[in-house]
Amino acid sequence: MESAFPVTPRTKVMRLAKRGVYDRGVVYSILDEAFLCHAAFSLDGKPFVIPTAFGRKDDTLYLHGSAASRMLRTLDTGVEACICVTLLDGLVLARSAFHHSMNYRSVVLFGTATAVKEPDEKMEALRVLTDHIVPGRWDQVRIPNEKELKQTLVLAIPLEEASAKVRTGPPIDDEEDYELPVWAGVLPLTSTPGALADDGRIVPGVQPPDNLLHYRRPK
Amino acid sequence: MESAFPVTPRTKVMRLAKRGVYDRGVVYSILDEAFLCHAAFSLDGKPFVIPTAFGRKDDTLYLHGSAASRMLRTLDTGVEACICVTLLDGLVLARSAFHHSMNYRSVVLFGTATAVKEPDEKMEALRVLTDHIVPGRWDQVRIPNEKELKQTLVLAIPLEEASAKVRTGPPIDDEEDYELPVWAGVLPLTSTPGALADDGRIVPGVQPPDNLLHYRRPK
Repeated sequence: MESAFPVTPRTKVMRLAKRGVYDRGVVYSILDEAFLCHAAFSLDGKPFVIPTAFGRKDDTLYLHGSAASRMLRTLDTGVEACICVTLLDGLVLARSAFHHSMNYRSVVLFGTATAVKEPDEKMEALRVLTDHIVPGRWDQVRIPNEKELKQTLVLAIPLEEASAKVRTGPPIDDEEDYELPVWAGVLPLTSTPGALADDGRIVPGVQPPDNLLHYRRPK
Repeated sequence: MESAFPVTPRTKVMRLAKRGVYDRGVVYSILDEAFLCHAAFSLDGKPFVIPTAFGRKDDTLYLHGSAASRMLRTLDTGVEACICVTLLDGLVLARSAFHHSMNYRSVVLFGTATAVKEPDEKMEALRVLTDHIVPGRWDQVRIPNEKELKQTLVLAIPLEEASAKVRTGPPIDDEEDYELPVWAGVLPLTSTPGALADDGRIVPGVQPPDNLLHYRRPK
């Protein structure tokens, strides 16, 4: 597999082209740090976009959900999907309203989804989805039974057409604005885990495991 | 304006219908807490989705960006957009893989965008966009000049067709799974501001204002 994605008319970053990144390693590091995507598809020519969890294994992205889901059933008919993953890193505060921006890392990918039907592969995809959100969780919980597997639709999208867009660093103001008495810089934003709240029905003596106590995303 | 959105075939929450919310107040509280949306549109029948900032004033959503932006120019041709706003509140950790979920508040809305061209309205929309992200920022910075206004495309989308989907609370496991020795509950996730980093070119004596020092989203 090539280490860079081919640049296609759809994935070529048009605006602020210097922010475009086609390196597979960069794209995958963004996919691996995030776990929520926005999946878009067209139905009768009209756009739909829905938030959903995802997982990645090698060069495949997995989505899952109820077998009754409108989105997943639509994608399973072989229509093209556009999927966007966005990590917001901070607010970029300039001296002029015009030069305000955000620091972010986003991936946009295109592909056609196919349902994962082979039982072992489907179970493995569900493991990937679970462990993508909380590494190690799969081995701590009851895995899906046959009825649950039937109720779950898993879709695979090959990672063949994708690009990232990344902004980092301070604001860039017009030279003459640097003399304005305006505070300018970056306000970092981070997704932070809070205190675990058990559901009140824990078997006595069971403690939260380390992967939850010290939850953090891979960087 | 009615206090509830009409339920249309597109906005009716199909999966887990009890999570659907059509109340305008709830939808607007989600829009006001967030400032990043994912905007989807169809181009030649194919879906595109892109992350972008937004603002809201009354029953209008505003997007903006470079007048050269592919997305904005496409939307300005009168095509329909689907816009999704998602706030992630936590990971829902069940005893079974199947019942894992997330706590979230999301809005999906549909509408046709039109360019805001009247100069006063355009300036006001840019104020709304700026103050939506950092309340009070507009009055602290240099506002756009004529050249910057020309380089900026502002789109307005009427808030007429929208719904929210909300999940809160602990995991719901199958009754027989409650005897498993598995920790279950919620791991809250919050977007947290970090320490302000100035850009190294601040006019001596200028301090960061309170709206940045104590930055928080409206709840």
